[in-house]
Amino acid sequence: MKTYILIGLLLIGGANTAVAQDHVVKYHATINDVKYVYASVPPVARLKSGDILDTNTLDCFGNAIQKPGDTLSMVKGDNPLTGPFYIEGAEPGDTLAVKVLGLEVDGNQGVGSLVPGFGALNETNYTPMLHPPLPEKIFFYPIDHTANTATFQALDSHFSVKIPLHPFFGCIGVAPSGGEARSSIVPAEFGGNMDSPEASVGNTVYFPVNVPGGLLYMGDGHAAMGDGEIAGTAIEVPLRARVQVSVIKGQKINWPRFENDDAIMTVGAYRPLDDCLRIAFTELVGWIHQDYGLSELDAYELLSKVAKIHLNEMVDPNYVVVASIEKKYLPMKKK
Amino acid sequence: MKTYILIGLLLIGGANTAVAQDHVVKYHATINDVKYVYASVPPVARLKSGDILDTNTLDCFGNAIQKPGDTLSMVKGDNPLTGPFYIEGAEPGDTLAVKVLGLEVDGNQGVGSLVPGFGALNETNYTPMLHPPLPEKIFFYPIDHTANTATFQALDSHFSVKIPLHPFFGCIGVAPSGGEARSSIVPAEFGGNMDSPEASVGNTVYFPVNVPGGLLYMGDGHAAMGDGEIAGTAIEVPLRARVQVSVIKGQKINWPRFENDDAIMTVGAYRPLDDCLRIAFTELVGWIHQDYGLSELDAYELLSKVAKIHLNEMVDPNYVVVASIEKKYLPMKKK
Amino acid sequence: MKTYILIGLLLIGGANTAVAQDHVVKYHATINDVKYVYASVPPVARLKSGDILDTNTLDCFGNAIQKPGDTLSMVKGDNPLTGPFYIEGAEPGDTLAVKVLGLEVDGNQGVGSLVPGFGALNETNYTPMLHPPLPEKIFFYPIDHTANTATFQALDSHFSVKIPLHPFFGCIGVAPSGGEARSSIVPAEFGGNMDSPEASVGNTVYFPVNVPGGLLYMGDGHAAMGDGEIAGTAIEVPLRARVQVSVIKGQKINWPRFENDDAIMTVGAYRPLDDCLRIAFTELVGWIHQDYGLSELDAYELLSKVAKIHLNEMVDPNYVVVASIEKKYLPMKKK
Amino acid sequence: MKTYILIGLLLIGGANTAVAQDHVVKYHATINDVKYVYASVPPVARLKSGDILDTNTLDCFGNAIQKPGDTLSMVKGDNPLTGPFYIEGAEPGDTLAVKVLGLEVDGNQGVGSLVPGFGALNETNYTPMLHPPLPEKIFFYPIDHTANTATFQALDSHFSVKIPLHPFFGCIGVAPSGGEARSSIVPAEFGGNMDSPEASVGNTVYFPVNVPGGLLYMGDGHAAMGDGEIAGTAIEVPLRARVQVSVIKGQKINWPRFENDDAIMTVGAYRPLDDCLRIAFTELVGWIHQDYGLSELDAYELLSKVAKIHLNEMVDPNYVVVASIEKKYLPMKKK
Repeated sequence: MKTYILIGLLLIGGANTAVAQDHVVKYHATINDVKYVYASVPPVARLKSGDILDTNTLDCFGNAIQKPGDTLSMVKGDNPLTGPFYIEGAEPGDTLAVKVLGLEVDGNQGVGSLVPGFGALNETNYTPMLHPPLPEKIFFYPIDHTANTATFQALDSHFSVKIPLHPFFGCIGVAPSGGEARSSIVPAEFGGNMDSPEASVGNTVYFPVNVPGGLLYMGDGHAAMGDGEIAGTAIEVPLRARVQVSVIKGQKINWPRFENDDAIMTVGAYRPLDDCLRIAFTELVGWIHQDYGLSELDAYELLSKVAKIHLNEMVDPNYVVVASIEKKYLPMKKK
Repeated sequence: MKTYILIGLLLIGGANTAVAQDHVVKYHATINDVKYVYASVPPVARLKSGDILDTNTLDCFGNAIQKPGDTLSMVKGDNPLTGPFYIEGAEPGDTLAVKVLGLEVDGNQGVGSLVPGFGALNETNYTPMLHPPLPEKIFFYPIDHTANTATFQALDSHFSVKIPLHPFFGCIGVAPSGGEARSSIVPAEFGGNMDSPEASVGNTVYFPVNVPGGLLYMGDGHAAMGDGEIAGTAIEVPLRARVQVSVIKGQKINWPRFENDDAIMTVGAYRPLDDCLRIAFTELVGWIHQDYGLSELDAYELLSKVAKIHLNEMVDPNYVVVASIEKKYLPMKKK
Repeated sequence: MKTYILIGLLLIGGANTAVAQDHVVKYHATINDVKYVYASVPPVARLKSGDILDTNTLDCFGNAIQKPGDTLSMVKGDNPLTGPFYIEGAEPGDTLAVKVLGLEVDGNQGVGSLVPGFGALNETNYTPMLHPPLPEKIFFYPIDHTANTATFQALDSHFSVKIPLHPFFGCIGVAPSGGEARSSIVPAEFGGNMDSPEASVGNTVYFPVNVPGGLLYMGDGHAAMGDGEIAGTAIEVPLRARVQVSVIKGQKINWPRFENDDAIMTVGAYRPLDDCLRIAFTELVGWIHQDYGLSELDAYELLSKVAKIHLNEMVDPNYVVVASIEKKYLPMKKK
Repeated sequence: MKTYILIGLLLIGGANTAVAQDHVVKYHATINDVKYVYASVPPVARLKSGDILDTNTLDCFGNAIQKPGDTLSMVKGDNPLTGPFYIEGAEPGDTLAVKVLGLEVDGNQGVGSLVPGFGALNETNYTPMLHPPLPEKIFFYPIDHTANTATFQALDSHFSVKIPLHPFFGCIGVAPSGGEARSSIVPAEFGGNMDSPEASVGNTVYFPVNVPGGLLYMGDGHAAMGDGEIAGTAIEVPLRARVQVSVIKGQKINWPRFENDDAIMTVGAYRPLDDCLRIAFTELVGWIHQDYGLSELDAYELLSKVAKIHLNEMVDPNYVVVASIEKKYLPMKKK
């Protein structure tokens, strides 16, 4: 664990010249210092509100799957997490904002896998049946950094096709509330394994601060993913990442949120999907009511006409839905 | 009920000059001849495979809500259906293809409503609670045919905003299998109240043929709708519609499907949403395997990387999800 | 179809001497006049309120599975129904009460089966997965009428064990509302394939009357069944049955109910089970409030302390839960 | 925290004279040393396999609600837990057996409550809606130790009724696996807030050992509870408790189990209830197959004929179902 303080040297996300005067904290993660639970443990680095963090994440297999013949039995733990990062001044009841400034695939291939006991069309730990599980399969996805694509190659025929890259954090979250510690495969109120493509460049993600310092974790990079992540994996990759953290004092939220110039977005993470939707939409109604001034019932009606739903995943211990509305449909934000 | 046979006179959807030699059957529906169940009853008109149908649908309230002060108690039946239309030669085991050529809002306003006992954030008949239901509210949406917008007007503040029109059939379906007759508020294997924005111009919808003639019904026009239709209504409108019907002999499908030049799409309609997804995706895996030649497990992996999920509605007796893949990600279709 | 009117001759259920002066209508069903949907069709017999009906039902396979080597492919339709029976004076808005006076297994063996695509631990039509389904298996259960037992015989080892008989109607219901017709495998508001062991001697089942005459159907006899009917079948048997029908004028209910001397019971039939429970318990709170005078919130609290839940089945298109409270915990019924 | 070692002095559960030679460890819990998470923390006492533990638990409110006018705002934490207890020799991969020898209500009243945002017929954190929640209500239940009853007293009328006592641990569990720490309101693989009436005198509960010593916790005593605990509370009481702990070396289980002389029982804890059932029944099929020698499919068929389902609760963050089979239906246990 090593922490450097730099000033204004932006290696990725070159458009961010406006933040040239921000502090940049660098931290390099290896398999020796990753974590497998979101919990309140000593941080690997400390940041100030407004600081930029340059770091990296291992892939969901701890980078253990590298070549044909490698198997899931070589994986020591799922979703190794980089962190936690302590953000000065963040206290329970505050909100932590994490703006994603830059994300790059850290390597030349991605990995996909059919995992026995995992996946939306497979019997699993939490939807068990008497069938034998589907077989383990490993797929390698060569990355073309110039063309910005990954290539799917069928195992049972000669078909291949290129897929545009959209890198994002499968895992991003903070220490849970109430003294809980949660596995890195779980998404919940603290964020975590949300598998949200919204956790990508250009978006800000908000978390409730549950413990002093917030304690931010990241991992499980995805080069691209289909809605629902139905077979249980995306194109799994290590990432190099740049994010900017800010503490919003005295603003309490209950579930993670996303925002960009165009839209506000809320997260619902639970089972079944029906309840994910109810969580995401009551949060979105509340956000619109509180910050944009529409009555709750007007907001409900408006969302019934213009809302978007992004079903992120239906494979983790909790499922994840993001509900959103474009800002162009909203009144001016209240000051 | 009157049926005309025309040749090549296209009143709407002006780009369809290529179909100039098709027969056009016209049928005008009124409140006196609509239906409220999908069932095997005498048809209002008969079409040949390849024929074009020009018709109209009433809104989900039977056009009963017209002005401030009108209430839901004035509605005689939900989702009145135009039809059924008998398609010559369609036999059980075939597939009926319905290509949507033209859809226009048939009037100058749409209606939205908060309906007691209905809606995703409301206690309902099938998710009852001990709360009193949310209050009834009626919203009117003026339609601007030139700008192609509808206008939302808040009831509890002075905010209004324009919403682009995307007209589609909330209801489109055929007579069910096994001698069942189903309410016009239900979506299921026979289609029905799918509330799928995919049922719009440019797309073809496929249904299993369950009875001789298929017996096509349409209704519940929507001028625009948010994903999930969460408050229980879209911008509800009467429609003028032009569709082309075709019988695909000897091809049996189990659930409705959509297709356009760019994508193939499958429907899952049930509860909870988890099972909608499983239905839609096993159908999509099967379609890819059968028509495009990928193995089932290769298709499953590929979908995990590039699939799209469109959550149509979570308010009707069954919920509806559409899963899709762009054709650019698929091998050449097998002959 | 033949209908006899008898007076006072009670062949089964010998304790019912008090009803000796009631009219007894006899109807014998064969495979040639069974039905496969609950619908509004011409009745096979007409009863007066208070009449007793002596009839019989075929097993869920239409009695097609008789000996080792017989397979499910020999079954022409699932759950053939005896009926419908028209009850004079029953009008929409009334309640139909059906008291089960006598039920006997009509034969010397029962049948159980593992059905591909059916069962709680199997991938099914509505919870499909990519696994192949579990294999078809047929089990025969010899019936000992003297000992009142059926015998389970393992297929893969030499184990056998006796199971006490508890005969009941797997299917009992009336024509649905709103012009719907529903398959004999579906349980819903009209009753139907509830697979409720409560539909047995000593209990009265109440149905909403949706069409003139109510139109009562029965079938799918079970000699005994485990909670949940998890593999998809009970010990399936033909039945000889005696029931008494009564019309309760002007009392409207929304879902089926059961009652006996000791308890009141409500049915919730939907998916997921969570919503079955909500339906059954809001109905039970309402029943207690209306007929026994407790406030809704007092009833809710009391049920949280003494309610019983009987999970009938989790394998049909809708799942079924019965919630109940013993009358000893209730105030005197309001007159 | 004080720990005494006694020999053979049995204060409660007088029939247990056969265990007179066991060591008895006494531990008295107060509000000052309870826990609110199941986690790996220093134990309050250490036991040997075979030891008896005499201890007590506070009620789910930390005994804070005592008299009319007291409100839920006085509660400092839900479900305070006594423990953890370290059992010598218990290692990950072993099973911990806890036999409940004696349970007595520790006081003269119990408490029930309608809790805003909690309950099966109420909008909640995980099934949120736009309704205001139902109001808070507190019910007191006088305990008659001689008659062995608690008395329900309606708040909105003059009705009262006696309910037989059936004391059990609402919470009993061990430290979770994978370094997780879970709130005392959650039931899951480690047990926890199962609200299982099976956790009562005469039954043994088995837990997977996830950490050295297992780390047993108990709390949330219930004097009686309805199936489903639908309003969110039972008759909440402090308990005096006697249990015997045993380590079963080298036997790994995945979910909690119960057993008594007559039956074997498995726990499924998740959402929706559908998945609870699948978990409990695949566990039960596996248990029968492994210990009693029936093939999995024979066990599945047999359970479809004789299984029992006990729906414990549908109000906690995970729901809990217990599936069981009477031993009289099983072959001899394999040695």
